Amino acid sequence: MTGRLFGVGVGPGDPDLITLKALKVLQGADMIAYPAPETGPSLARAIAAPHIPEGREEFAIRMPMLVNRFPATQVYDQAAERIATTLDHGRSVAVLCEGDPFFYGSFMYLFGRLADRHPVEVIPGVSSLMACAAALSAPLSAQNDVLIVLPAPLDDAVLEARLGLADAVAIVKIGRHFERIRTLLERTGLAEDARYVERATMDNQRVLALSAVDEKAVPYFSMILVHRRGRAWI
Amino acid sequence: MTGRLFGVGVGPGDPDLITLKALKVLQGADMIAYPAPETGPSLARAIAAPHIPEGREEFAIRMPMLVNRFPATQVYDQAAERIATTLDHGRSVAVLCEGDPFFYGSFMYLFGRLADRHPVEVIPGVSSLMACAAALSAPLSAQNDVLIVLPAPLDDAVLEARLGLADAVAIVKIGRHFERIRTLLERTGLAEDARYVERATMDNQRVLALSAVDEKAVPYFSMILVHRRGRAWI
Repeated sequence: MTGRLFGVGVGPGDPDLITLKALKVLQGADMIAYPAPETGPSLARAIAAPHIPEGREEFAIRMPMLVNRFPATQVYDQAAERIATTLDHGRSVAVLCEGDPFFYGSFMYLFGRLADRHPVEVIPGVSSLMACAAALSAPLSAQNDVLIVLPAPLDDAVLEARLGLADAVAIVKIGRHFERIRTLLERTGLAEDARYVERATMDNQRVLALSAVDEKAVPYFSMILVHRRGRAWI
Repeated sequence: MTGRLFGVGVGPGDPDLITLKALKVLQGADMIAYPAPETGPSLARAIAAPHIPEGREEFAIRMPMLVNRFPATQVYDQAAERIATTLDHGRSVAVLCEGDPFFYGSFMYLFGRLADRHPVEVIPGVSSLMACAAALSAPLSAQNDVLIVLPAPLDDAVLEARLGLADAVAIVKIGRHFERIRTLLERTGLAEDARYVERATMDNQRVLALSAVDEKAVPYFSMILVHRRGRAWI
């Protein structure tokens, strides 16, 4: 009898933005795993910390710092193997995921390696997309708005061709790409409709105009939202 | 001393997909309001039902059936007035919102009428977007995917110009537009990469290939997700 694997969305940062369903999974799981940097604490674990039962077996999936963050194949292979062994012993594993597991989440690398052989359940979570809109006190999308989510690492030409086709734009994964994105939004006349949100719903959340952002201090957990139509929805 | 207005995301359908923060707001609010059809039960209230304290004052904002669902100005004016009066008496009001309040939610019509004069807090919720991806057991967006959300009521030409520019497409608000959308996806070669999800996370959730959908029985709470790249993210 194989154990069950859970991808658990823990929400965007505020520990109270976890769902009851995620809580129940955390309380019942035999092992709790989470992504973590090479050294230091895991953000996903920090978000879920108040809800992790004491003494539960934990597994920090430590990821070397990479400029290209995509599959560190070996790390995921090894993590999947350890999780598979746990599941094969009939024990359940909850993998903590910042925000939602399937919205640009690294959980998909474990999912891709394990879902064929083990039962997997994904517990959707509150995404940074919705958290940033709440932080801005502005609807993300209204009526028949087209909403587009653009990862900042994409080329300017790719971004520019898509910026014009949406009423609302969310630019994610900003980090070191901030200055290029700010220039692009200025050039396309969108900078004034754009706002920057950093660490939405966390204690150190910040909302800034683009012009006020220090491009050298933009964390990975930041987003730019552009609302082309202002408050036309009222 | 004015009371506080809360827009509370109650999640996509499973009552356990409500957040702890939303629960706390429901427990503390003096009045609980929610959108409802002209007659019969409110879906938002049904989702939150296990969490609504007994005997709490409730306000069903009843909306006449409209083909064009956008602002039934008078209904929202009157609802905002009643809520404003409650807030002016120093009492707090929680407005229940299916999914997330700012993701195509009707809460924005109350927000637009009340936010200038009263303190408003939006509690983000698990959106149908993430719930549908979980229901499909497939990542919504991976790596540097472009994700676009398209409301089905938009014209075919508008939709078609945007379908080609994204790796992942979510078509929302399908309902009576289903057959037109299915035809469009067939014509653009996307039908095989598309899946249909109905009432994600509810007891009567269904996941179907487009070809298996009865176009006469498509509810408003349905979505089509298209993943252009298959499982290339593994």
